[in-house]
Amino acid sequence: MGVKEQKVSLIPLGGLGEIGKNMMAVRYGDNILVIDAGLMFPEEDMPGIDVVIPDISYLVENRNLVRGIVLTHGHEDHIGALPYVLKQINVPIYGTGLTLGILDGKLKEQNMAGVAKLNRVKPGDTVEIGPFRVEFIRVSHSIPDAVALAIHTPVGVILHTGDFKFDQTPVDGQVTDFHRLAELGQKGVLVLLSDSTNAERPGYTMSERVVGHAFEEVFSKAKERIIIASFASNVHRLQQAITVAHKFRRKVAVVGRSMVNVVNIAAELGYLQIPKDTMIELDEIDRYPARQVVILTTGSQGEPMSALTRMALSDHKRLEIYPGDTVIISATPIPGNEKMVARTIDHLFRLGADVIYEPFSGIHVSGHPSQEELKLMINLTRPRFFVPVHGEYRHLVKHAQIAVEVGIPRENIFIAENGQILEFTRKKGRVAGRVTAGQVLVDGLGVGDVGNIVLRDRKQLSQDGILIVVVTINKETGSIIAGPDIVSRGFVYVRESEELMDEAKVKVRNVLEKCQERGVSDWANIKANVRDVLGKYLYDKTRRRPMILPIIMEI
Amino acid sequence: MGVKEQKVSLIPLGGLGEIGKNMMAVRYGDNILVIDAGLMFPEEDMPGIDVVIPDISYLVENRNLVRGIVLTHGHEDHIGALPYVLKQINVPIYGTGLTLGILDGKLKEQNMAGVAKLNRVKPGDTVEIGPFRVEFIRVSHSIPDAVALAIHTPVGVILHTGDFKFDQTPVDGQVTDFHRLAELGQKGVLVLLSDSTNAERPGYTMSERVVGHAFEEVFSKAKERIIIASFASNVHRLQQAITVAHKFRRKVAVVGRSMVNVVNIAAELGYLQIPKDTMIELDEIDRYPARQVVILTTGSQGEPMSALTRMALSDHKRLEIYPGDTVIISATPIPGNEKMVARTIDHLFRLGADVIYEPFSGIHVSGHPSQEELKLMINLTRPRFFVPVHGEYRHLVKHAQIAVEVGIPRENIFIAENGQILEFTRKKGRVAGRVTAGQVLVDGLGVGDVGNIVLRDRKQLSQDGILIVVVTINKETGSIIAGPDIVSRGFVYVRESEELMDEAKVKVRNVLEKCQERGVSDWANIKANVRDVLGKYLYDKTRRRPMILPIIMEI
Repeated sequence: MGVKEQKVSLIPLGGLGEIGKNMMAVRYGDNILVIDAGLMFPEEDMPGIDVVIPDISYLVENRNLVRGIVLTHGHEDHIGALPYVLKQINVPIYGTGLTLGILDGKLKEQNMAGVAKLNRVKPGDTVEIGPFRVEFIRVSHSIPDAVALAIHTPVGVILHTGDFKFDQTPVDGQVTDFHRLAELGQKGVLVLLSDSTNAERPGYTMSERVVGHAFEEVFSKAKERIIIASFASNVHRLQQAITVAHKFRRKVAVVGRSMVNVVNIAAELGYLQIPKDTMIELDEIDRYPARQVVILTTGSQGEPMSALTRMALSDHKRLEIYPGDTVIISATPIPGNEKMVARTIDHLFRLGADVIYEPFSGIHVSGHPSQEELKLMINLTRPRFFVPVHGEYRHLVKHAQIAVEVGIPRENIFIAENGQILEFTRKKGRVAGRVTAGQVLVDGLGVGDVGNIVLRDRKQLSQDGILIVVVTINKETGSIIAGPDIVSRGFVYVRESEELMDEAKVKVRNVLEKCQERGVSDWANIKANVRDVLGKYLYDKTRRRPMILPIIMEI
Repeated sequence: MGVKEQKVSLIPLGGLGEIGKNMMAVRYGDNILVIDAGLMFPEEDMPGIDVVIPDISYLVENRNLVRGIVLTHGHEDHIGALPYVLKQINVPIYGTGLTLGILDGKLKEQNMAGVAKLNRVKPGDTVEIGPFRVEFIRVSHSIPDAVALAIHTPVGVILHTGDFKFDQTPVDGQVTDFHRLAELGQKGVLVLLSDSTNAERPGYTMSERVVGHAFEEVFSKAKERIIIASFASNVHRLQQAITVAHKFRRKVAVVGRSMVNVVNIAAELGYLQIPKDTMIELDEIDRYPARQVVILTTGSQGEPMSALTRMALSDHKRLEIYPGDTVIISATPIPGNEKMVARTIDHLFRLGADVIYEPFSGIHVSGHPSQEELKLMINLTRPRFFVPVHGEYRHLVKHAQIAVEVGIPRENIFIAENGQILEFTRKKGRVAGRVTAGQVLVDGLGVGDVGNIVLRDRKQLSQDGILIVVVTINKETGSIIAGPDIVSRGFVYVRESEELMDEAKVKVRNVLEKCQERGVSDWANIKANVRDVLGKYLYDKTRRRPMILPIIMEI
């Protein structure tokens, strides 16, 4: 028997469809380091759910082993679950300036200011966290101050790209630290975990700077106001809008709570350069001619409550769209939002605005790497093992194919599922079991209390509604004292369905009487009978299957 | 006062978001000609709805004036509402062979065979329908036997493109009748109504033949079974799959009810050329080695009940996916279906299939014209007036911009909304009022009975569920005899919420007692009180707003 070989484990803990997106645990012996803690937005089969967070049972069970949480960047899907996570495991947090700035704002909103120990690092810094030496390496992304992580462990280097792209001409001039990535590749990387979001896209992702040029073109033609909708956190995008506005002697107002927040934080921390006398308050807009006004707004995803959507529906308290306005939708719809965005665009056109929204117009570029960049990342870092992360299953498959193309042996590539333990020694990798992982649904104040049963009921209720049958019965004799009454919601338009409801009452009465005759006094049995007879009757008459809820009161 | 000028009116009657898509009325004096009668699929804010059909109140009110319905092609969104429409107005139908073949199949399914008078025409034919002389002009589309309509009226020619593309190398060799379109343009077209679906896309739409080449490439590499998912009605696509299968000596089985139907109808009518000994039954598949099998299937939109989706979920009765299978998704997701399609692809990859689905792989092309084709259509037909149709508002705006580019004066372009009457004389066009139009929701056997109230209830029920409060009360004294009982569905997981429910009961009891003390005996008032107090309490405790339904039984 040889000496026991040292090993390090990687465990993707979060993601909805996507794998290893929102949270990842790195374990070495009795030490766990967590990468990111993001939230997800509910899918269409989760009615009523506000947000979805990773299931952190594994971390809670091993709370004494968790040494810290390192953050790659300040997007919701990487830091948004921290207010929930910190309530359960309060460990030190490490992140760059803007990332912590945004997190801090979030914690304040939740009355959790000062709860967490936030450790600010700069790209290029190295921090010791337990047995892990964590290096923060600058990468480009659609938010400033994004980093990849080189986690030095006794087994080898785990390189986690975070979300990245290789922007050769970034807006802030801060290119990805190609040299350090190359150096790590030279010295040896054990495992590379890399962003698979755009693994389906051939070629290179365009530079963020392209958007600035597109803005200039639009600005040079627009005769009236310009309204730019973008992600609040895309500080580079906001910077370009502000810079171009200044160049064209336009004033800039910001609308939408999250965008106002980000602009304030980014400006305060020096990530946003605002020329003097450029920004104005929303109230001041009308003091300037339309051709001197730019409005930066949220709502690029057609979100129902956002500023742009309200403007499009003529439902905003302080702003309306005028014919001649130019609206730039500087974003692409996140999968699932396509129809909401399309509807917003339709409404804006109806109001007489000129809407610039087509991807090929250059008013948006992705923040994630396309296939050639993915190849470059692998070629630069030359890892022994490769784990595609941040993507749905098909993206990981595509990314794995790309890795094979650039020479990673197929047996050294691991496509994981959330909760799977990937265990690596210096020589070998394997799937070594599974921990509890997955999604926790948040609905109002309830974290995790809405499960499959509640969701199934909500879905059934939404399809054909509910029909409630109430009857008061004599406990002794089983005879009906009051009712049956029938109340329905979401099933049929009741005023036009009196006959149906009357007949339904007769059916219920018959069932109850038959039960009484037969001496059936077991309520569960009687209710099942009511549901059965009534369900068949209603389906026959309407081809609908409402939820049927018999309620029997005994006196 | 001059002589009263002759006029013809166009009234788009159908479409969900889209305008003039599913049904259009042409009126000349006391004569109405209807173009198409299609159905729409419900949007995500129409829970429980099966299909949506156009509101034909206008036609029903003027039933004696309706001379006939002419069909442009056999797609659901152009003929699918006919079973509903014919029940209300049974007028002669005109269409080409395949269109009527598919319609006939549909009518038989609904036990409506022989109900309608179906008049078969060939592309190139002209038919007199009342005062309208209707010419059927061959165009290319993603279904054979598609036609544009030149409707000759005493005021001038109305040219309606139907759905079309300019395929220079169509699979069946039947190119668009460019000559007749040019001739009409030469003689003078009063109004052109043209397909706006792809008005956002620059360039030309690729020929359907490109897909055949892509199939050949995939077939030449595939080592095991090939499964092709496509729209059932895309006969050209099915033809190419069968032709390539035959070339590669593979047998073809068809799965999915709608695809089996279309294959049978198209083969019977001669629209599908099937080489001898190519087709096999599903049961026979296992008699052939995997490399000799092709399966044509429905499910290209990730529809939950379709054959491919069931296979992907390992839930199909007779077919399963094996590692090594090649699955071709020969379609792009219809807006709104993106996530369902993506999930299906993920599942197929998980089962070890190789999935070909990216648009740039050439395994799908659109059936609608891109910008350069739209320009060509306008240049060929040189209409006096232009009405973009078949598109959401933004598509119509883009199409209008295209028309301006090729020289149609802006004032001669009309972007309509469904229900608007566009009235044209030889010289002038104008919006001349509005008729009832819009959507009728079909849910089970109910046509139009699910309205805003029912939908609103379904949506509320889906968000936070329902909470029912039942109490039996003495009619005389107002005192509680039984209850209050509380039943909830879709609100909280009840087993873990006993305390909440107990406290809720106390709240209800208090309200009722207070009402009794104050002598309030008006049930509506008491119920409102219960809803109010309970709503506040529950929101406070959970931040959820279930529907609250108080039911009071008197004895």
